[in-house]
Amino acid sequence: MKAKEFEYLLRNTANGKKDIISRDTDFPQWYQDVIVAADLAENGPAKGSMIIKPYGYAIWENIQQELNMRIKAEGIPNMYFPLFIPESFIHREAEHVEGFAPEVAVVTHAGGKELEEKLIVRPTSETIIYDSFSRWIQSYRDLPLMLNQWANIVRWEMRPRLFLRSTEFLWQEGHTAHATEEEADMTARKMLSMYKDVAEEVLAINVVDGEKSARERFAGAKKTYTLEPMMQDGKALQFATSHNLGDTFSKAFDVRYSAEDGSIKPVWQTSWGMSTRSIGGLIMSHSDDRGLVLPPRIAPLKVVITTVGQPDQLVKKAAASLAEEINESVLVDDRDISPGEKFYSYEKRGVPIRIEIGPRDLEKKEVILVVRDTGDKRVVSISDLDTEIKKELGSMQDRLLKNSKKLQRDNTIECSTEEAAVEAIESGKFAVVDFEVTSEIEDRLKKQSGITVRCYPFNNPGKTILAKAY
Amino acid sequence: MKAKEFEYLLRNTANGKKDIISRDTDFPQWYQDVIVAADLAENGPAKGSMIIKPYGYAIWENIQQELNMRIKAEGIPNMYFPLFIPESFIHREAEHVEGFAPEVAVVTHAGGKELEEKLIVRPTSETIIYDSFSRWIQSYRDLPLMLNQWANIVRWEMRPRLFLRSTEFLWQEGHTAHATEEEADMTARKMLSMYKDVAEEVLAINVVDGEKSARERFAGAKKTYTLEPMMQDGKALQFATSHNLGDTFSKAFDVRYSAEDGSIKPVWQTSWGMSTRSIGGLIMSHSDDRGLVLPPRIAPLKVVITTVGQPDQLVKKAAASLAEEINESVLVDDRDISPGEKFYSYEKRGVPIRIEIGPRDLEKKEVILVVRDTGDKRVVSISDLDTEIKKELGSMQDRLLKNSKKLQRDNTIECSTEEAAVEAIESGKFAVVDFEVTSEIEDRLKKQSGITVRCYPFNNPGKTILAKAY
Repeated sequence: MKAKEFEYLLRNTANGKKDIISRDTDFPQWYQDVIVAADLAENGPAKGSMIIKPYGYAIWENIQQELNMRIKAEGIPNMYFPLFIPESFIHREAEHVEGFAPEVAVVTHAGGKELEEKLIVRPTSETIIYDSFSRWIQSYRDLPLMLNQWANIVRWEMRPRLFLRSTEFLWQEGHTAHATEEEADMTARKMLSMYKDVAEEVLAINVVDGEKSARERFAGAKKTYTLEPMMQDGKALQFATSHNLGDTFSKAFDVRYSAEDGSIKPVWQTSWGMSTRSIGGLIMSHSDDRGLVLPPRIAPLKVVITTVGQPDQLVKKAAASLAEEINESVLVDDRDISPGEKFYSYEKRGVPIRIEIGPRDLEKKEVILVVRDTGDKRVVSISDLDTEIKKELGSMQDRLLKNSKKLQRDNTIECSTEEAAVEAIESGKFAVVDFEVTSEIEDRLKKQSGITVRCYPFNNPGKTILAKAY
Repeated sequence: MKAKEFEYLLRNTANGKKDIISRDTDFPQWYQDVIVAADLAENGPAKGSMIIKPYGYAIWENIQQELNMRIKAEGIPNMYFPLFIPESFIHREAEHVEGFAPEVAVVTHAGGKELEEKLIVRPTSETIIYDSFSRWIQSYRDLPLMLNQWANIVRWEMRPRLFLRSTEFLWQEGHTAHATEEEADMTARKMLSMYKDVAEEVLAINVVDGEKSARERFAGAKKTYTLEPMMQDGKALQFATSHNLGDTFSKAFDVRYSAEDGSIKPVWQTSWGMSTRSIGGLIMSHSDDRGLVLPPRIAPLKVVITTVGQPDQLVKKAAASLAEEINESVLVDDRDISPGEKFYSYEKRGVPIRIEIGPRDLEKKEVILVVRDTGDKRVVSISDLDTEIKKELGSMQDRLLKNSKKLQRDNTIECSTEEAAVEAIESGKFAVVDFEVTSEIEDRLKKQSGITVRCYPFNNPGKTILAKAY
């Protein structure tokens, strides 16, 4: 069916003009070029801010939908807490304020007056939410309390990069409170599995799941679980995290409940989030030197039908009626512009399938079907088109995940010395080490080589994964 | 089908405890009581801020879905602009800054430093969006440019009230640019019709559509179109607005295009928005002295199945399997608590249909079906249940809209003098006047009686509607 909301692409002449440098030449510049060429986002007027343009936002909407569905299926409803947090709140938990105070934005004036208490623009919402939890939770009957919100977040960034680091980003943050430590830990791990499912099954990104080192933990957490996919340049990207907060915040915010035996106990908590940063990971996982490559399940437009050859009303009509017969979101581009320009504008936007139709194809009741990632081109009979499209979308989805798995497998090396690990990582690999990475080693690696502990992988007990990261 | 995300309602013991005063005794207090009893929202820690709780947020999600679908069907995609607007931007358009400067919140410090240029937390996004439009629009080929965003908005409020006025609220704001003034005006009116469709067909709220007086226009607009439903106390609520911005902003932000003849022209613009304020209107349109009443199309939970009588495993099993057979979102409440407490907890939340099932009903393969707004109770055979539910939901939806239409019709009076209008309005009516309400009269009415021009109604040319308003 026609996706009416993407018809603006046919009018979008002033944007997306950008040559793309090759990945081998300059990977960071390639990343920026792909974003500009696909018209996903651009810098906002205030330093470090980001404008998410319609095509980039449509990807986010699809990610939201997939996550939202899974969160609700866990029995977790959405809600919305205020953007502004009284400054005193973030001082209540010592580690938390140490972690976040340096990067907050502060509202000092409002309504024409200086405020009595300054307001922090939320860098994350544990403090304001758990202040409410302390009133909402009275008895064991209120537990578990599990909530989620979709919100904008502000963290001041010194070295902004589109999607990866910006002063404002979008995310969901889940917050739960439980009667036992075990239930909280199980929940934190379950939510990480949910993210893993979205990463692998929807975004076709292979991820390593594991636990963060003490140094890399969320400020105030007892344990932080993380997903660490490998980007095409061999660096890691922290894709999503889930925290077992222990009773740290419940003690700081006095979130206690009366148990069945009448005793008063602190609750055990978790928080977990996934943000627009994941779009950065998506871009760096699959895209190529022609521009964006999107896994079909997350692509806003699955198919573009392009007319080719001389302007021809019959062909245009046929293209429009074809669009109605395809059970995926389709755009028809019947503009009378050069085929090269037309084709490229969808290639660089990562539309999974391009259909070409011209007068001769129409006569033979055929079209040409082109697949974005492989570039494979073949003739398909119009009567088989919907079936063939479904098949190609499925194969492309599987292929991208397979490629992502292969990338990481081929570029992960077991190392038993610090020197070997540094050497491997400098050549674009993940190093799996079996020696203990003490906090002294961690500090040295970070300072000397920009290398960090990515995680203690669940599937490889006793090992540590080291890498550079975005 | 079971709505898993509402199962928290079965654990929600510490919240929603509130007696509801009657509408006749104290309408404003009744409004607050309904919100607390239905557990929709509460005040946040910073003055004037609001926490939207899961049940209230679920209503907003349904409103979003209905609006979002309609906006996309108009070929308008979503995007996202930054929260922070450089202070200089809002000074570029004189009327706009005059209107909004007094109510903005200002970020002066971020990342541990004082900012070189202060940042305004968006009170609306015309300025930051049109700054981008000036770069994105070059040629007539780029027009129309039509975008929408879902965002949080901050306006400092001195007299906050949940949903109606809070320092932060949620909304969508649409922004369009066109080649001609006619096309812009037509678009502004089309978007108002879209809001009217949502108000009447989804929220069952009868609305008067019309144009605002110069005094009540959006700051910087050439024309503001508005929807003005009547609340149960006879006051108006501005439900949604759509603005023909003329070329005011395009001149201030230099949004110009080269026309087909090569000349350079300013674009013609519109903006339009609907916010969480509409939930306030929804509450005051339909609810009663027992609490919230929700039109079925917007109710998060359409049906609750409550077990009654002695704890009985067979009844509980039957309730669970009934839930699977109903094609609407259903919650099963099989807790062993008093029926009175159980029933009331869904009445005050406005769940449209309650099904009661006990051991004797089960034997007779029957249940009791109770409709929220009328309180009508009847026996329904289990085999007909899904059909009967569908029928009852449809009737209730129609009935609420009919009631809303009747309320407004019965309480709207034609008046030909200012005195008669004031008297009518003081007794809880809308006054339709045929004399010219000059700005002098407008000022006097506002100052002396708190009465404002609600609109010049489209369907009654030459007339003016006066009322008090939320």
